[in-house]
Amino acid sequence: MTDRYEPFREVARQASLDALAIVPGANFARLFGQEFHQNERPLVVVIPVSGTPAAIVPNLELASFESIGFEGEVFDWRDQTGYQAAFDQLMQSLPVNVLGVEGQVMRVFVDQAFRKAVPAIAIQDAQKQIAALRLHKSEEEIMALRKAIGITQKALANTIDVVKVGMTERAIENILVQHLFAEGAQDFAFTPIVAAAQNSAQPHAHSREDYEIKAGDSLLIDFGARAGGVCADMTRTFFVSHCSDERADVYNTVLAANEAGHLASMPGATAHDVDDATTCVLEASAYADRIRHKTGHGLGRDIHEDPYIMRGNHQVLEPGMVYTIEPGLYELSDMGVRIEDDVLITDTGSESLTQFDKTLTVVG
Amino acid sequence: MTDRYEPFREVARQASLDALAIVPGANFARLFGQEFHQNERPLVVVIPVSGTPAAIVPNLELASFESIGFEGEVFDWRDQTGYQAAFDQLMQSLPVNVLGVEGQVMRVFVDQAFRKAVPAIAIQDAQKQIAALRLHKSEEEIMALRKAIGITQKALANTIDVVKVGMTERAIENILVQHLFAEGAQDFAFTPIVAAAQNSAQPHAHSREDYEIKAGDSLLIDFGARAGGVCADMTRTFFVSHCSDERADVYNTVLAANEAGHLASMPGATAHDVDDATTCVLEASAYADRIRHKTGHGLGRDIHEDPYIMRGNHQVLEPGMVYTIEPGLYELSDMGVRIEDDVLITDTGSESLTQFDKTLTVVG
Repeated sequence: MTDRYEPFREVARQASLDALAIVPGANFARLFGQEFHQNERPLVVVIPVSGTPAAIVPNLELASFESIGFEGEVFDWRDQTGYQAAFDQLMQSLPVNVLGVEGQVMRVFVDQAFRKAVPAIAIQDAQKQIAALRLHKSEEEIMALRKAIGITQKALANTIDVVKVGMTERAIENILVQHLFAEGAQDFAFTPIVAAAQNSAQPHAHSREDYEIKAGDSLLIDFGARAGGVCADMTRTFFVSHCSDERADVYNTVLAANEAGHLASMPGATAHDVDDATTCVLEASAYADRIRHKTGHGLGRDIHEDPYIMRGNHQVLEPGMVYTIEPGLYELSDMGVRIEDDVLITDTGSESLTQFDKTLTVVG
Repeated sequence: MTDRYEPFREVARQASLDALAIVPGANFARLFGQEFHQNERPLVVVIPVSGTPAAIVPNLELASFESIGFEGEVFDWRDQTGYQAAFDQLMQSLPVNVLGVEGQVMRVFVDQAFRKAVPAIAIQDAQKQIAALRLHKSEEEIMALRKAIGITQKALANTIDVVKVGMTERAIENILVQHLFAEGAQDFAFTPIVAAAQNSAQPHAHSREDYEIKAGDSLLIDFGARAGGVCADMTRTFFVSHCSDERADVYNTVLAANEAGHLASMPGATAHDVDDATTCVLEASAYADRIRHKTGHGLGRDIHEDPYIMRGNHQVLEPGMVYTIEPGLYELSDMGVRIEDDVLITDTGSESLTQFDKTLTVVG
């Protein structure tokens, strides 16, 4: 029988750790095939380099936890008595001097409970190595990504059909969201961004309740469905009623950068190469001062994960890796343009999982 | 001019800390009146017991960060060079030996960056004290809660109107979600729970794509809108087509417990008193073995926050505090019933912010 913990044990061995602690999140979901959510009640699985894992589980979650078929000892705890005793008992049963954790996922109160149980413990951030186990998507994950992206694209198509001058950003967002769930989203991949004019120049804008879109505005929509345990992430930038020649030139510069990113995406290339190919197009344009961010990020069970598509990241791209290509140009006093696709590295090159039209489109 | 940091400085003084670190989340949003989201790029504000605060901000977020009118020095950093230098520089400019953090919010990689900058630093979990600053809701927050709860109630009313035998849990959830956003939700307060029959006995159930509700089933719906920066949270349990006498007895037991919780909610009572009044009703019933959790949790900018309504919590209730009363009874082989209201402590007693009918209701 395969030991489903072996990849985690190997991470621990390579990094000279005694054990890894995994909390609810993307790594947990992939390992156990079921999603749990972090809340104020700690739930942790500790996987040693050899031997049986152990877990700390809120009593309230025991029935749900049973469904993952956990092999090791479970230390449960109740609200009335608190969780520290469960940490103490687990760490007595499974001695650990050096513990690797998911630094971007685990919160400090869990870290502190481990430190309290074993004052001499060394806690190391093994985020990078643990998340690397998810770099290559499974067939099921790729199918789920196709589905989540399909839902996202249909929702966007249905929304831009009804966009009109005078609608607020928030009203457009509400329509988008209703279509997203009607098409089968189970959640957002992240809070959607519907941002016009100057607001579209904020990379993480919030939609405004009081801004009515007007002719000539840029309209940037960045959103995605969460479905089947994975996240879609797509951005398109439209223009309302008409588009000036200068804005069209900015748009087409970003589009050329996006396309350069696709062309550079192939097995054997690095994340650096893709960012470089994309960013060079922006840098060579008249709008180099409008560059604000790197080209993209990995995508899967987490909305932001490895591989990060940025200069200096020499991660070699291999078949099964999925990431975004999302160059943008932002002028704070005017507008932002971003065009974002989700890309799968294949045996021979890459495939754009997003297929939504990218030619300059006037709406409303 | 009022020093908006004074409540935080006082928390630090009381706990003998040199400074507090605040990351994006509920405390950050209340302090600055604007929501930021945690992602893989650390953003932290450090508030010393006296003197000017300082911040670490991703370069990408500088423009958004400007809008909060931050008074102190900002150490920004870029993806290409990483964030550690910003932590090093901030900690050189603002010497801190003992740092208080939001243990349930801050993640370990931020904690580790502080430890790397100052190896001798002591990091203490000040979650409880920092979150206590939000125990008393402002007038604006109470207005926002009323609005978010109103949205939630309308969405539920519209949904149960169309529930029919044979619909799947997921299909009902999709309708609910569409109504939620049509009514004005900006986000979910949490992933909605639509769970029938045995699935309703899981306190944190996921809606099933393949389960069609049938006559006699319990149907538990637990969800809430996020709007105006705050969370609504409401549960109602319905019965499909008909309800057996035994199930009605379980339902009415939970309802009596819920009502006991309302009656016990008044200024001067403690969180313990409210849980005790509620739980005693359940314990005195024929279904005491179906108790699985405490009575409730505080509610506001976070979906789960202080005061936690549980025995042993001697927090005195005061006007302006808001929390849930949500007793439940769960039989894993059969069904769960939970009835959840959101309650505001007033000068003279308490007010139920949720007004949705609680009498046993048969749907479909």
